[in-house]
Amino acid sequence: MNIILLSGGSGKRLWPISNHVRSKQFLKLLKNNDEFESMVQRIWRQIKFHNLDNLSYISTSHSQASILKNQLGDQIPLIVEPERKDTFAAIALAVTYLHSVQNISPNETVCILPVDSYVKDDYFKVIKSLESVLIDSNANIALIGAQPTYPSSKYGYIIPHEMINLNVVDPFYQVKRFVEKPTEQEAENIILTENALWNCGVFAFKMEFILNILKNNGYSTDYNELLTNYSTLPKISFDYEIVEKESNIVVVPYNGNWKDLGTWNTLTEEMAHNSYGNAILSDECKNTHIVNELEIPVLSIGLTDIVIACSYDGILVTNKRESSKLKKYVENIKLRPMFEERSWGWYKVLNYSKYETNEVLTKKLMIKAGENISYQFHHHRDEIWTIVSGQGIFLLNGSLTSVKPNDVLQISQGDKHCIKANSDLEIIEVQIGSVLREDDIERLAVTWDEIKNFIQTAGEKSNE
Amino acid sequence: MNIILLSGGSGKRLWPISNHVRSKQFLKLLKNNDEFESMVQRIWRQIKFHNLDNLSYISTSHSQASILKNQLGDQIPLIVEPERKDTFAAIALAVTYLHSVQNISPNETVCILPVDSYVKDDYFKVIKSLESVLIDSNANIALIGAQPTYPSSKYGYIIPHEMINLNVVDPFYQVKRFVEKPTEQEAENIILTENALWNCGVFAFKMEFILNILKNNGYSTDYNELLTNYSTLPKISFDYEIVEKESNIVVVPYNGNWKDLGTWNTLTEEMAHNSYGNAILSDECKNTHIVNELEIPVLSIGLTDIVIACSYDGILVTNKRESSKLKKYVENIKLRPMFEERSWGWYKVLNYSKYETNEVLTKKLMIKAGENISYQFHHHRDEIWTIVSGQGIFLLNGSLTSVKPNDVLQISQGDKHCIKANSDLEIIEVQIGSVLREDDIERLAVTWDEIKNFIQTAGEKSNE
Repeated sequence: MNIILLSGGSGKRLWPISNHVRSKQFLKLLKNNDEFESMVQRIWRQIKFHNLDNLSYISTSHSQASILKNQLGDQIPLIVEPERKDTFAAIALAVTYLHSVQNISPNETVCILPVDSYVKDDYFKVIKSLESVLIDSNANIALIGAQPTYPSSKYGYIIPHEMINLNVVDPFYQVKRFVEKPTEQEAENIILTENALWNCGVFAFKMEFILNILKNNGYSTDYNELLTNYSTLPKISFDYEIVEKESNIVVVPYNGNWKDLGTWNTLTEEMAHNSYGNAILSDECKNTHIVNELEIPVLSIGLTDIVIACSYDGILVTNKRESSKLKKYVENIKLRPMFEERSWGWYKVLNYSKYETNEVLTKKLMIKAGENISYQFHHHRDEIWTIVSGQGIFLLNGSLTSVKPNDVLQISQGDKHCIKANSDLEIIEVQIGSVLREDDIERLAVTWDEIKNFIQTAGEKSNE
Repeated sequence: MNIILLSGGSGKRLWPISNHVRSKQFLKLLKNNDEFESMVQRIWRQIKFHNLDNLSYISTSHSQASILKNQLGDQIPLIVEPERKDTFAAIALAVTYLHSVQNISPNETVCILPVDSYVKDDYFKVIKSLESVLIDSNANIALIGAQPTYPSSKYGYIIPHEMINLNVVDPFYQVKRFVEKPTEQEAENIILTENALWNCGVFAFKMEFILNILKNNGYSTDYNELLTNYSTLPKISFDYEIVEKESNIVVVPYNGNWKDLGTWNTLTEEMAHNSYGNAILSDECKNTHIVNELEIPVLSIGLTDIVIACSYDGILVTNKRESSKLKKYVENIKLRPMFEERSWGWYKVLNYSKYETNEVLTKKLMIKAGENISYQFHHHRDEIWTIVSGQGIFLLNGSLTSVKPNDVLQISQGDKHCIKANSDLEIIEVQIGSVLREDDIERLAVTWDEIKNFIQTAGEKSNE
């Protein structure tokens, strides 16, 4: 069996801590012993613990590849979507990768796992059982259904054909139908009378099941071909495109704790502390959580059932009950990401101003020891870098110099430049230009070896 | 009659929009026609409208002198306390100023006015009547008592000796006693049975009354002498030191609207809008106010009776009922002011970081056209200035150069420097030093004329 962990998602439901490059699964709000960890770190740790890591791949997007490597290490096997396409396309691409790049037999089982499930270790026993369940049941898809602990109106439900018997070893049940986000009353009803289970978003199937669907719909089952034609795949969820059209599905019940950490309401229930960062909760506060990524303090007085979340992207104050309404408001907030983690480190936007003829953006950058940014130039802006901490090597138009705190580096538009950190390097960067765009960047070479090679080939003299 | 407007106060009760250099009275949250105005601008506009401005002085502290000039103009008559000492000392100093500097007769009436009263124009008729009330009543102090509109537990109350008759023209009543912040029940009781009035914090008296008290207590009645010995004055309020010890006091009732805008609860009742700055209130929010001075958006969902206030100093989220508990929490927040208005413009702190051997502070400065900062140097820090908007003249160790956007100015520790704005000038400043202290500044000359004079006298050659 192989596992594909789905780590896509735009993360609007946990705004402002989550944005399109920095999704909920990367927030270090959970705790393992004394260490904070993110959702993706937690589930990858569990996958490793159950010796499933050599069988696991992570399906993700370009914008999240850096932070995944940052949090899980350079060696994790990523399958990167060339563009955002919802889960059907992401799963199809991952399956063709296993098939045509990894040469895994079409007869093998694949299990799709969402990254934002909060589960205990016994959950992985159920996951491991899905392969034999598929064989024993002869079903096309096997799902996991968690025993509901309350009639939630936020989850999807799976209704089994027969009553569930928890005394059976490795039980599975044919799926009768699905109910998506019922009212609390409906939920209570289907739990009591129909043994409804929470849909955990796990799908197991034999690879050939999806490969055949691709073939029958005129898509290639070759990874590289599908990658090239990725834009022709529909933007639709795996649930809608596959699960809802399939009748031969079984569900395996899971009797332990399961939770989708996708909303502030559910996430705060599992948070290790009531407050993160520089935050004060008055004695009168009840069931109130603060997540503060800003340096300035947050003070809350006399609040009940409130979440306060602050990041460089914005500030949210919401009643927990209504936190699911977040998405529609966040869609109207037009703001560039103000904090990004990259493979080389991170940056924060400290200030943006627009003047009559210029735009100005002030950033703080941190480049990790040994890392470098790519050799690049900009068409429309100058940059002024002040080194504030650490040591590094600065490359400007082929010329290398050592840099240290208090050094000021002036980079005019068109100047080819990059920097490599010898120790963790912090820089205050001021960008000034007639127009500032994230895509005003021409990358000439990325790794340090490529860069050294580039400046030699280009006839630029290196004095390293 | 002369008026002394008291504009001191540390402003903790309206944190984070208010700090020790930027108090509640300077927040432009009120509205006059289409223009936003601050409390001090509102009351000064009213004083002018009633032709009292030529008779009025503002008692304030050093740290607020700049912003007062910014908001009211250069010509306003300030009486500046050399250090913070509560209202008794501030009033004593102001009275000696009128006496020994302005040579106003000890027989003249002085009326002390708090700056944070929100009143309509008819209030000033009552103020004008206080002089004749003092003569007619032969009282030592005359107060204004507002007709309560509800039994507030936040205000002080004045109990008159007899029942108040609103049909009397220019009435006044002997004061029987004071009740400070009663419970709502007590307040209801004294309003109904004893005709209690809200104490508006206005004191009128003949100058000789205070001059005699100073003499009798061994203090000088000469302004310059009192200024020199200011540190020997007790740190006590005028209420405690004078009013509570005096038996011959009258109160003049005021039947119009009066409000102390000193807490978020009362201030938000008079705010022109529910939100200021980049803010979104969801449809479900009720009686909720947002004041956001940050650039990033604030989104609030499903809140009732909440105030959210965000500034470079911090973020407050409080239930309105409990907003008066703010002070005790704010006293524990140790943070330098992150935003200051100065006579020459303003600055914001964008970022502060402490490293092993260095501290780094990134600021944005705005210097108004025609203004300059003083000619100065620092012992412990370098500064890197990037001009991002506007034109100016930069003076470094006696040498003048014109500067424009994209120019980078490197100022090492010990370098004498200043800048003058020809047009509104914005600068990103990075301070780096082994230790960063606000008082690490040696000012050599302040005005542009003084600076030009200084560099000539010092033998520094000017190339202007």
